[in-house]
Amino acid sequence: MPASAPSLDVVAVGNAIVDVIAKSDDAFLAEHALTKGGMQLIDAEMAESLYGEMDAAIESSGGSAANTLAGLAALGKKCGFIGQVRDDQLGTVFAHDIRALGIRFDTVALTGDAPTARCLILVTPDAQRTMNTFLGASQYLPAKALDVDLIQSAAILYLEGYLWDPEQPRAAMRAAIDAARAAGRKVAFTLSDNFVIDRHRADFIDLIDQGFIDILFSNEGEIQSLAEIDDFEAAVASIGARVPVLVSTRSEKGAVAVVAGVRYEAPAAAVETIVDTTGAGDLFASGFLAAHIDGRSVEDCLALGAAAAAEVIAHYGARPEADLKLIEARLFA
Amino acid sequence: MPASAPSLDVVAVGNAIVDVIAKSDDAFLAEHALTKGGMQLIDAEMAESLYGEMDAAIESSGGSAANTLAGLAALGKKCGFIGQVRDDQLGTVFAHDIRALGIRFDTVALTGDAPTARCLILVTPDAQRTMNTFLGASQYLPAKALDVDLIQSAAILYLEGYLWDPEQPRAAMRAAIDAARAAGRKVAFTLSDNFVIDRHRADFIDLIDQGFIDILFSNEGEIQSLAEIDDFEAAVASIGARVPVLVSTRSEKGAVAVVAGVRYEAPAAAVETIVDTTGAGDLFASGFLAAHIDGRSVEDCLALGAAAAAEVIAHYGARPEADLKLIEARLFA
Repeated sequence: MPASAPSLDVVAVGNAIVDVIAKSDDAFLAEHALTKGGMQLIDAEMAESLYGEMDAAIESSGGSAANTLAGLAALGKKCGFIGQVRDDQLGTVFAHDIRALGIRFDTVALTGDAPTARCLILVTPDAQRTMNTFLGASQYLPAKALDVDLIQSAAILYLEGYLWDPEQPRAAMRAAIDAARAAGRKVAFTLSDNFVIDRHRADFIDLIDQGFIDILFSNEGEIQSLAEIDDFEAAVASIGARVPVLVSTRSEKGAVAVVAGVRYEAPAAAVETIVDTTGAGDLFASGFLAAHIDGRSVEDCLALGAAAAAEVIAHYGARPEADLKLIEARLFA
Repeated sequence: MPASAPSLDVVAVGNAIVDVIAKSDDAFLAEHALTKGGMQLIDAEMAESLYGEMDAAIESSGGSAANTLAGLAALGKKCGFIGQVRDDQLGTVFAHDIRALGIRFDTVALTGDAPTARCLILVTPDAQRTMNTFLGASQYLPAKALDVDLIQSAAILYLEGYLWDPEQPRAAMRAAIDAARAAGRKVAFTLSDNFVIDRHRADFIDLIDQGFIDILFSNEGEIQSLAEIDDFEAAVASIGARVPVLVSTRSEKGAVAVVAGVRYEAPAAAVETIVDTTGAGDLFASGFLAAHIDGRSVEDCLALGAAAAAEVIAHYGARPEADLKLIEARLFA
């Protein structure tokens, strides 16, 4: 049970990644057998060869859970991040950016050969992003790097499904859940990707059925994959009956939440021109959680999620550029 | 005299810099005694402390002459670049981005302690950029790194005034001028910055009066500083009488050119929302030179310069994002 009231709102464990974002086209994806809209893990050799063929790029700190924290911090929430970089230039960039947002980040940088993770993101003219992740140092997050006091100081522990792939961070996240639970904290989990679910469905179902997950974030494809049900509403009903809070986003079709067995729905927020959908799900989670922390209604949580997602898809990069507090104030005026 | 017709359009010698771009405000500039709109050179210590206080940033390849080449390449011109990076992650980013644009870049990366140059760019809400440049490896470009064959293969040698500050690149640029002249090529030079002119006015005047510069790029403040005349038209008339082609940009007031003693003027191109003026002068030079290479009228050169500048100030970052060939086609339709 908690020894004291939480001093932070959310602590996340996630990939510490710098995004490398370039325009691309369908022909390039086809030529390299890349699945549009998905995420694939690549090794150092593939990272080098793919980068060599990519268009001129911009670099921007990313990582799914870290993006969600960036949104939460922009909405005034107090956050901490745990993730593994190396002591190289991209690691410095990642650490700078997350700390500049006021997010606590104390994970000690590695000094080995594995460089800071990068995600080569190809953005097609339809604003879809196809992600190619070289995990580098990020996959070596050791359980001993977990700051148990930090985790226990936050009302919510937020975990990134992507990080379930490599062995060390998976063990670290299991330990993080135990630490959070021991302090009576809530656990939020994002399913991240269909292919990640394919690789770890049994683990994820176990976490849910053992009651370790209080808030589950997903998108349409992910929830159907997790439930192994080829119908969105049926999949949502099936999983929604097994977690206290389920959120499932559906791009332009809006989002659905199931809270204590009751289904809620909200439309997507309007966007003038969709530029780059990278970070849409991450920022939806920011908005939803920020409103949830404030004790707002489920409808308000969905609406703030949709507004934060709408902001991030209107520009390149997966972190907010506009003033989310202002967007929130207008939404709830 | 040229042994053969040039196979490239433009070869530039310039700083090889990665821009680190973050939003800022007037209070931050005042607190750090930074001159808005200017460029100051900073050392490693200042770079670290300023970066530590900056907002979350995006990284994007920059460097004034390299930006101009990016615009020229986007307009279909064949280009080569000479500039010094280190063999670190930011050096890899710079090299990747310039090569991805189809620009030849063969300068061998340094392996010493000096890291790849970065420019910490603070963008205020009025879209002005204030640049803080840590030159790192860029200042160690040795004259022996000059590829004389490359320089002599291009119709125009383009030189960046910023790079006149450090000793080695200054010597390299003098050697580059000699190489270009020996092959009968033209030399274009951009004045870069008022403070650079303050430090090197005598050198720049010498280059002009010895007839080493065929095309001189400047802005309003720079041309007045160079001429030491506190009146724009008088300064333009004074310097314009001494170079074959003088171009001087005046932000929203448009631009003036003096070609063979005749004065031309063009308005600025319309921009819906000015986001970040970084690269405006660099891209004006791209547009002007591209049209000049195509043998267009001075009016067309100014118009394409204005259009390319308008594109780059509509977004963060100093390199074009929209299709400049399409903008050119519409302009000259």
